Amino acid sequence: MSETVINARWIAPVDGRRRWLENHAVVVRQGRIAAILPRDDAARAHPDAEVVDRPHHLLIPGLINAHTHAAMNLMRGVANDLPLMPWLQEHIWPLEGQFMSQAFVADGTDLAMAEMIRGGTTCFNDMYFFPDVAADRVDRAGMRAGIGMILIDFPTVWAANPDEYLDKGLAVRDEWRHHERIVTPFAPHAPYTVSDGPLTKMRTYADEMDVRVHMHVHETAHEVNNAVEQHGQRPLARLDALGLLTPNLLAVHMTQLTDAEIERCAAAGVHVIHSPESNLKLASGLAPVQRLRDAGVNVALGTDGAASNNDLDMIGEMRTAALIGKIAGDDAAAVSADAALEMATIAGARALGIADETGSIEVGKAADLAAVDLSALETRPVFDPIAALVYSASREQVTDTWVAGRALMRDRRLTTLDLDDVMQRTDAWADKLAAFAAAQTKS
Amino acid sequence: MSETVINARWIAPVDGRRRWLENHAVVVRQGRIAAILPRDDAARAHPDAEVVDRPHHLLIPGLINAHTHAAMNLMRGVANDLPLMPWLQEHIWPLEGQFMSQAFVADGTDLAMAEMIRGGTTCFNDMYFFPDVAADRVDRAGMRAGIGMILIDFPTVWAANPDEYLDKGLAVRDEWRHHERIVTPFAPHAPYTVSDGPLTKMRTYADEMDVRVHMHVHETAHEVNNAVEQHGQRPLARLDALGLLTPNLLAVHMTQLTDAEIERCAAAGVHVIHSPESNLKLASGLAPVQRLRDAGVNVALGTDGAASNNDLDMIGEMRTAALIGKIAGDDAAAVSADAALEMATIAGARALGIADETGSIEVGKAADLAAVDLSALETRPVFDPIAALVYSASREQVTDTWVAGRALMRDRRLTTLDLDDVMQRTDAWADKLAAFAAAQTKS
Repeated sequence: MSETVINARWIAPVDGRRRWLENHAVVVRQGRIAAILPRDDAARAHPDAEVVDRPHHLLIPGLINAHTHAAMNLMRGVANDLPLMPWLQEHIWPLEGQFMSQAFVADGTDLAMAEMIRGGTTCFNDMYFFPDVAADRVDRAGMRAGIGMILIDFPTVWAANPDEYLDKGLAVRDEWRHHERIVTPFAPHAPYTVSDGPLTKMRTYADEMDVRVHMHVHETAHEVNNAVEQHGQRPLARLDALGLLTPNLLAVHMTQLTDAEIERCAAAGVHVIHSPESNLKLASGLAPVQRLRDAGVNVALGTDGAASNNDLDMIGEMRTAALIGKIAGDDAAAVSADAALEMATIAGARALGIADETGSIEVGKAADLAAVDLSALETRPVFDPIAALVYSASREQVTDTWVAGRALMRDRRLTTLDLDDVMQRTDAWADKLAAFAAAQTKS
Repeated sequence: MSETVINARWIAPVDGRRRWLENHAVVVRQGRIAAILPRDDAARAHPDAEVVDRPHHLLIPGLINAHTHAAMNLMRGVANDLPLMPWLQEHIWPLEGQFMSQAFVADGTDLAMAEMIRGGTTCFNDMYFFPDVAADRVDRAGMRAGIGMILIDFPTVWAANPDEYLDKGLAVRDEWRHHERIVTPFAPHAPYTVSDGPLTKMRTYADEMDVRVHMHVHETAHEVNNAVEQHGQRPLARLDALGLLTPNLLAVHMTQLTDAEIERCAAAGVHVIHSPESNLKLASGLAPVQRLRDAGVNVALGTDGAASNNDLDMIGEMRTAALIGKIAGDDAAAVSADAALEMATIAGARALGIADETGSIEVGKAADLAAVDLSALETRPVFDPIAALVYSASREQVTDTWVAGRALMRDRRLTTLDLDDVMQRTDAWADKLAAFAAAQTKS
């Protein structure tokens, strides 16, 4: 039976017990973590295993990007320094209206996955059109993903009305439900874009099938104030009334929260997905991450789409989360480096309902791993490898990314995606989008 | 006469007129920018020049790190997730008490310079002990720098009392005053560590000699509140009473500012140095950068020391400044990518009083430049190269760094510092510091 022994200078298991192990090895068998033991013991116990030596590296659980819109990578940096609604209405939605297609989603998702794999991300939670195409690309690239059954009131090239969104989403679910690396949450866009009828129908399905619900909630004060003006109710209260505040809800952003709302989310078991760079770039607000964590809420981390970030760099996102978490919490001890790493790994797995499978380096779980070389000048000296990862390292220091024991990147070389091909397809789209955007500006 | 023509896909001159030029060249002669013109014109006009082709690159003015403590790089990540005073009193000051020496400053400054050159930084403004040693290392490495004449009330291995600090500082100034790449500002540590007598004496010298004054001011609410309790006065008011609010003052941090203080700084011509990552990591606060800029204050950017950041990455610092500037200003248009690039270049040159020499790509200035390769997958597509630099690029994408026309890094290879030697010296210090820190924790 073929085995791989991965030797690392440091291993951060994120198991809630040990910050890190030094000079240990992870033994991988049939895609799963078979053992974690001192390096010398591993060599003795597994003499015939393939050996991967990473002598200057920190081995971490594969990073989980708990909120993104992968295909939007093709719109990276197309509009900047704008608030959410003008950014959406004047730039993103017109471009999507013009270019959204199966090919756009295939090429954009590949670009996003190449970026994520190169940055140590093994799993992402996606919300976008053509989830059938995205699931197929995930299957081919070997990543793990949540592929959202998108739901929105208005018609797009993917679906004409809420019923069609639900039908087509459920068909995608049926197609991929037995895939070992794919889960399919519902993905209603936001309270302000999905009305009560479709949400209620979706909730019935979600409850019956015990499926996650991935939704933007309380992203901006504007969203909350508008809802209060129009419906006399904050969006979270409306979702509560609709029966959506359950352990299946992944509420993304949540920058606007009262103490009572934090308590309600904790009591209901709601997961919060924090996307700090997007929240900053769109001036949406600062999510109260430490208060949520103190209240017992599971807070995971996501990059949001590259069009509002402008990257899918989970190492950078951990840094930003740790840094602004201290300001939001008015405490330099808030959102420590360790907390940021938890949010980027095990918390994401819990949010997606796959914590038995991934999110930490523990015996029995899938071998979803990333190796980060800390020997670069920029991360020397290393007094604390987790602090070095979160506060100093660049994603370029990630050397290897494994999903279920398969190396999707080995020594910086992608194994399932062709880098040149991905870049060529990207550039072809960029030319078209730039020409359209220029014409729009002129007209 | 030897000339170099640097061809770049994009050039961001940061000259206040054009965002970027496409397919242009910079002609360098005797260390200065002799011309900026279309690539084909450059080839015709300078047929005998050495040609450096950077066909996928953005050429920017060399980044200016307007506030750091270079040698503290040896303490990178030694203590994390702590507020300013416990971080200083329980970790940094004990380590400095134990290890501060000429050798520590030489090795730490080399580590910092290697990191900065690798990240496109050409100039840094330093505040630390043994400025004589730092100046010597800067001279050898070929960087440009402000080397602070440090001043603090309490005795250190560098000086026993304020008069000795001033005398030794002025001796360093005398030694280096005619060096073309070194300026020597006064560097009184902070209002809470330098009393009125030494500040007054220093101010007399600064006024007479027209020298910059580089000082931490209003870093935390704690600092301001303590001063009000102890002296009945906010630190900025005290500095004003001492005659220090002049165009020579570089006030670092400034997270705590009233509207009246912003107006007073604008009227006085004070420069503000913004160090966002340090301010976040120590939970010090958010400087009102957009309000300062709107009031007409020159705001430059610095990383602070690696012990509180934990890197000297000016590209990352631009990103953080642009992102949190929007939250501090409650406006997604605040601190745009262009504003961040200005803060990291020309504003730093103005603060240091060397804007005639560096800080932008303009004919007549020294050729202080950095080339950033935007062809990486992580920065594709490029709709806007300045947004790509600020919001998506990593410092690993910097390929070349020139100071006064001399390549300190060419194609990622350092030319004036020996990378392996720097890393070996770093590791030797790390072992000593880690042993001391471990013994302290046990005792």
